[in-house]
Parts: sequence; structure tokens; C-alpha cells
Amino acid sequence: MQPSSFPRRDFVRALAGGAAASGLLACAREASSTSSSQPAMTPEPAGAAPTAATSPTAAAPGSAPPAVQKADGQSYAPKGKPNPVVKPGEFTIAAAYLDHGHIMGQCNGLTEAGATLKWVHDPDPKKVADFVAKFPGVKVAETLDVILADPEVKLVTSAAVPNQRGPVGIRVLESGRDYFADKPPFTTLDQLDKAKAAVAKTGKKYMVYYSERLHNESAMFATDLVQQGAVGRVRQVLGLGPHREGKGRPDWFYEHDKYGGILCDIGSHQFEQFLTYAGATDATVMHAAVANYAHPEHPGLEDFGEASLLGNNGATNYVRVDWFTPPGLSTWGDGRLMILGEKGYIELRKYVDVARDKTGNHVYLVDEKGEQHIEVEGKVGFRFFGEFILDCIHRTEKAMTQAHAFKAAELCLKAQAAARKLG
Amino acid sequence: MQPSSFPRRDFVRALAGGAAASGLLACAREASSTSSSQPAMTPEPAGAAPTAATSPTAAAPGSAPPAVQKADGQSYAPKGKPNPVVKPGEFTIAAAYLDHGHIMGQCNGLTEAGATLKWVHDPDPKKVADFVAKFPGVKVAETLDVILADPEVKLVTSAAVPNQRGPVGIRVLESGRDYFADKPPFTTLDQLDKAKAAVAKTGKKYMVYYSERLHNESAMFATDLVQQGAVGRVRQVLGLGPHREGKGRPDWFYEHDKYGGILCDIGSHQFEQFLTYAGATDATVMHAAVANYAHPEHPGLEDFGEASLLGNNGATNYVRVDWFTPPGLSTWGDGRLMILGEKGYIELRKYVDVARDKTGNHVYLVDEKGEQHIEVEGKVGFRFFGEFILDCIHRTEKAMTQAHAFKAAELCLKAQAAARKLG
Repeated sequence: MQPSSFPRRDFVRALAGGAAASGLLACAREASSTSSSQPAMTPEPAGAAPTAATSPTAAAPGSAPPAVQKADGQSYAPKGKPNPVVKPGEFTIAAAYLDHGHIMGQCNGLTEAGATLKWVHDPDPKKVADFVAKFPGVKVAETLDVILADPEVKLVTSAAVPNQRGPVGIRVLESGRDYFADKPPFTTLDQLDKAKAAVAKTGKKYMVYYSERLHNESAMFATDLVQQGAVGRVRQVLGLGPHREGKGRPDWFYEHDKYGGILCDIGSHQFEQFLTYAGATDATVMHAAVANYAHPEHPGLEDFGEASLLGNNGATNYVRVDWFTPPGLSTWGDGRLMILGEKGYIELRKYVDVARDKTGNHVYLVDEKGEQHIEVEGKVGFRFFGEFILDCIHRTEKAMTQAHAFKAAELCLKAQAAARKLG
Repeated sequence: MQPSSFPRRDFVRALAGGAAASGLLACAREASSTSSSQPAMTPEPAGAAPTAATSPTAAAPGSAPPAVQKADGQSYAPKGKPNPVVKPGEFTIAAAYLDHGHIMGQCNGLTEAGATLKWVHDPDPKKVADFVAKFPGVKVAETLDVILADPEVKLVTSAAVPNQRGPVGIRVLESGRDYFADKPPFTTLDQLDKAKAAVAKTGKKYMVYYSERLHNESAMFATDLVQQGAVGRVRQVLGLGPHREGKGRPDWFYEHDKYGGILCDIGSHQFEQFLTYAGATDATVMHAAVANYAHPEHPGLEDFGEASLLGNNGATNYVRVDWFTPPGLSTWGDGRLMILGEKGYIELRKYVDVARDKTGNHVYLVDEKGEQHIEVEGKVGFRFFGEFILDCIHRTEKAMTQAHAFKAAELCLKAQAAARKLG
């Protein structure tokens, strides 16, 4: 069994609520294999329906979330089944600085889990108008200070330009509120140090939207599978994070000091996944490299990055990220994750099963008994958001520990700093 | 267009003979995409049937080779459609030292391409008996010297214990014959140096059975695709080579000095693929690591290895090899290869399309036009063997250059030597 930031009881609760790794697994096994049982998978019986402010749960099986646009990673904002853990007004939030489209996903996740979105702020009226169109009823704040002066606001979420996420977070924490930043949460180790100090001083949370796990049902399902020991002790996590550059990226996308480098930016998801799936709490960078292979017109862009890490439990991590998703792919990136255990392996095809199925959330599990393909789209939900809201209310760390969120950020910064420049 | 050891004219010839990358591609595209043409793919019209000793060709489309056992990598010996480039007796060969089951694949490939297998030698009568059962009519030689005294023999092929492949090869070359070794062809750089000297002195060939490309139809098909520029300039090759340990491995399998380490042994395939697909002629090792994670009873075994290389054309290579194929996989290893180009990417699922299809040789191509799944099993054949026989006869290097075969060997030895020991 791997150490994990998700205690067993929460996993079982999620199962009881319907995420049902075991149930899905049993169905898939029946359909694709002759084996009859899965001894390691023995969830507790389903309990009573969750009540407000007590138990986040996943979407009910079969309740597919609304379709979400997939062509463009910068505005990929998954929607799930509303599954509130609090009543209206019990947990009021605000959105400030909308530079990355991830803000829509951040707010989808939090509001579906019951948060009341009261305020939005951005200096750009166009961004504000787009946001208000998606979240009608939200009030427009002329400044961040207006938000921070409202005692109802418990949390501020932000997708500022990456190098501003740290400074915005400090202001939020020092105002006595929790903070939920888009990834990457920092672009320098100095920003990370300041955030650690602010957390220590204020007792508030600086949490991060590592969306490629937290807002992906296959990745959340795999979190459960690994936790259950489905592949034995995890020895390597390999993540491929190709992204589409597309058109209409803002200027900061091409400015290295603003986005922090490719391993810092889209690499951050990967290191968070490694810590989670391998059950490591720290790691060292054995190798890292970045390149600008094919974008000479944008000297600040890195279009390729890779890194090899060694976890403090002996597991390794290989990460490759790039901006080479070709126009013919039906989604913004053929994100893959391969978890190699001593007794089996898991592959995730997160956003498409290329040339096989345009839906995402495909889990492939090979273990001692057979090969399984488990389609989990619409069946797992996004329990992080409800758990996080409850963490904010009860000052717990069930959704993710502060140490884990900061360690993933530290690793992406260290990999970026260590990266050899190729090309 | 990538530089390559396969000149364009040979590719077109292979197409004309039936491998037909373009033809397969067109079919797959029609089935899975709405795009209407593939401008880059314009093979010459199919020519006349090949004649003996002139033109190796691939299997005819639709002519599936006989089924081959897949549970066990050590005796995985693909069979193709017989497609002789020489007449009986025109190219006589012998097999000596049968320690690895690959020898069956080596002899299948050569005899299907027309070689006359005259002799076999091994000190172990059981191995000889098994071999004779598969190749009836072969004569048993009491010693290698008996083979080397027969003037009819033009080439000796061997799957000796890896650390003996070099010394055996020197004897073969010095007798005035060409040599075809199983991979890895060496376990030390000193052996490589001696082989280079013997090649220089004798003018004979020291060729290597890099079976994971040469004896795999998806990999040979991808060789053509990349050569045609299907994904633009190749920037990374990522290879995953999981293998099943299984039962009944010989003692030398667990003795490090005999097999040379995991990156030397099963890693050798990967570096050969990198040089081929990336079109690199040399590379440096940026990172390498090996571990014995889960086999404490076999301290000489490495069950995990990884390496990152930088090609002399700026392309990178990531390689992961392991002995963790779980019992539930329907074949000996879920070998994958991902070729990342500036304009698209190719994924090979070489031996199984896990939980989707138990056949091998699945090619996935994503380019500017769309996503394609191309099943090439039984449609491409194994042109290496015929090309190699003709190379031996005509003293050409169409199948593979000596420099390429040795460079792949050098890289696996250098990666092994540079490997950090984990676990």
C-alpha cells in the first residue's frame, strides 16, 4: 500500500458515494476478462446519502457531465454534476485576475461543490464580461481590495499571470482568507518561500488547481486504484503532457519570466501526479532539459521539456511536456499517464483514446489477472472541490495537504532551474 | 525529411513490393477520417514481381504470417511470409550457440528470405534437438570449427550468452564470414573495439538482430512513415520496453557480467530505434539509471532501467525498460514507441493493443489532418532479412550500415556505464 494524502476512509466514502472504483472495475473485468473476482477491492457498503457540509461525493454512476469544449487547452473547463457540500451562502468565494481560462474550471469546480461565487475582479472589462456571462449574478469588483474588504468572502481564487499568482496570494492570505491559485502557483522559489511564510503566519491555505489530476475523472479514479494497491508498490510514474499552442495566446504566454518555463508551467501537473501516485513526499531532480525547437519567432517560449526525478521512496518519475499537439488531434492534448507498479500498471488516456474514441477518461489496468479498459467519464466526478471547501471550513487537509501542494510547486521550479537548454 | 540509413529508393521499392505505407495509410484514413488525400504519400506504382537476388520485398497485403507464441519474450520468434531473395544454396548460413531463444527468430528471418541453413552448433544437445525440430534437415556440427571449415558457409548467426557474442563474432569474421549476432552484440566497450578492428581488418559484417524494430511490422512501417516525413522533423523518440521475466530463465540471465545490465540488454533495441527514427548518427547520455526494485533473490538482476539521450541532431530519446510485465498481460510485453515530430506523432503498440486487441502491430498516427489507427500485422513483412542477405552478397549497406549497428551497441554500453543505481 502506498502512502498517500488521501486517507483510506475518504476513499471508501467516495466509493460509497458512487465513484466506486471497485464497482466500475468489476463491470470492466466481467466484460473483458474471464476472471471472477477482485480480492483487493472490497469497499464498504454504500452508506446514507451525504448531507450538506459533511461528505463530498462523486457524481452518480452514469450521470455524464455536460459536454465541454476540448479543442483548446487554455479554455478547457470541465463541468461535473453539481454536488454541493454546503448550502448557498455557507461558503462565499471571489474570483480575481482571469488571465488564464483555467479560472472557469476553478469556479465550475467550487460552485458545483456548493460555493457561492459573489465577486469577480479583473482590470480587463472584456475578461470580466466573459466571466459574468458564464457565472450570471456575480458582482463586479473594481479592485481586489473591494473583495478583501467583504467579510463574507472566505476564499479567493485566481488565474493571474503566473508570476503574479504568488503576490496576489500573499495579499489574500494576509487578509485572512484562503487562496486557490491556478497552476503553476509560482514562477520563482522566492515566491514559494514567501507563500510558505504567509501560510505559517496566517494559518490560511494556499491551495493549487492541479487540474490535470483534480479535474480529470480518470486521474481521480487512478488515485483510488493506486491507493487500493491495484498495481502493488508503485515504482515509476511516467507522464506525457502534450498541449496545443493554438491561436490567440496572450503575450505573457511567450514571456519566460511571466510563465516560468515549460517545466514550471505545464510540468507542474506532472510533478503533482508523481507525488500522488508514487506516494512520495519529496524528490530530487536527476535530469531536466528544455528546448525551443520550432518557435524561433518566440524566443521566450519553450516548446519541449523533460525531467527525471527520484522520489524519496525510491520511485522514479519521467515527465515530458510539449506544445506540439498537431491540428489533426480531436482535443487539445493526448495526455497520458503510466503508473508502473510491481504487480501491474495503469495507463490513463485522459482526453482522448486516440483514433479509438473521442471521449476522455479512459483507464487501462493490467494486473495479475488480466487487461481491463475502464471508461470512467461521467462516473467518478471531481471530489477534490467539495473536500477542499470542507477543509477550508473545518481546517482539515483531506483534499490535499499544504505540504503536498507546495512540494509539487517546488519540484517544478527546481526541475526548471536544473534544465539543460537544448535545440 | 530526416536523414536515415534507409535511402528513399529502397523505401519506394518496399512500397512497390507491397509494404505500401501509403496504401495502408490511405485505407486507414478513409475509414477513420474525412480527409481525402495524403499529399506527402505518393509511392511509385507497383512494379514487377521481385526476382531472386535482386529485390527484397515485404509480405503481400493481407497475407498474415502464421501465429507466433507471444506469452514469453525469450522464445518470441516471429514468422513472416517466405519471400526469398536468393535461390536455395546461393546463401548458406549456420547457427552457432543457441543460448537465447532469439536464435529461432534470427533463423526464421534469414531462411524466409532464402538463406540455406546448413549447420547448427551448441554444446547442449537439448538446445540442438529443439533447434533441429524447428529446422529439419540442418546438420549438427560438433564444434564451431567444423562450421568455419566449410567453404559454403557465408554467414554465422549466434545467440550465445551476451558476453560471448563478441568473441564468437571475432572468430567468425576472422574466418572470412559475415556475422549476425543477437542483441546485445557486446557487454563491454572493449568487445566493441575489438569487433570494430576485426571489421576493419576483414571487411566482413558484424550485424545485429535488433528484433524490436527489424522483426516487428509496426516498427518497420513506422520506419517508412518517418522517412516519408509523415510527422515532420522528429524531435523525440520515447520507447517503453517492458518484458516478462517468466519462468525458466537460464542462470546467465541473472548474472550481470554475462547479460551486461538491463540498459545494455533490452535497452539496446531502444537506442537502435532512436538512431533510426530520429535520424541521428550519434548521441550523448544525459541521464541513466537502473534498479533492482523487486528481485532481492537475484542481486545480479536489474529489473528497471531508464535513460535520456541527446542526439547529434538535437533530438532527444527517453527509454524505459523493465521486467515487470504482469501475469495478466496477454503477451510478453506492452512495448510502445512514441515518435514526436514537429508536425505530428506516431505511437506504436507493438505486441498488443492493451484491453482492445490481442494482435500486435498497431500504428497510431496523428498529423495535421487527423487521427488514424493503422493495423499492419501481416501487411508489411520483414524486409531487413532479404536486404541484409543481398548486402552480404553485394557488399552494400541497404539493410543497415555497420556504423549504425555499432553506434546503437555503443550507446547501450555507454548508458549502462553511466547509470545511477537506484532502489
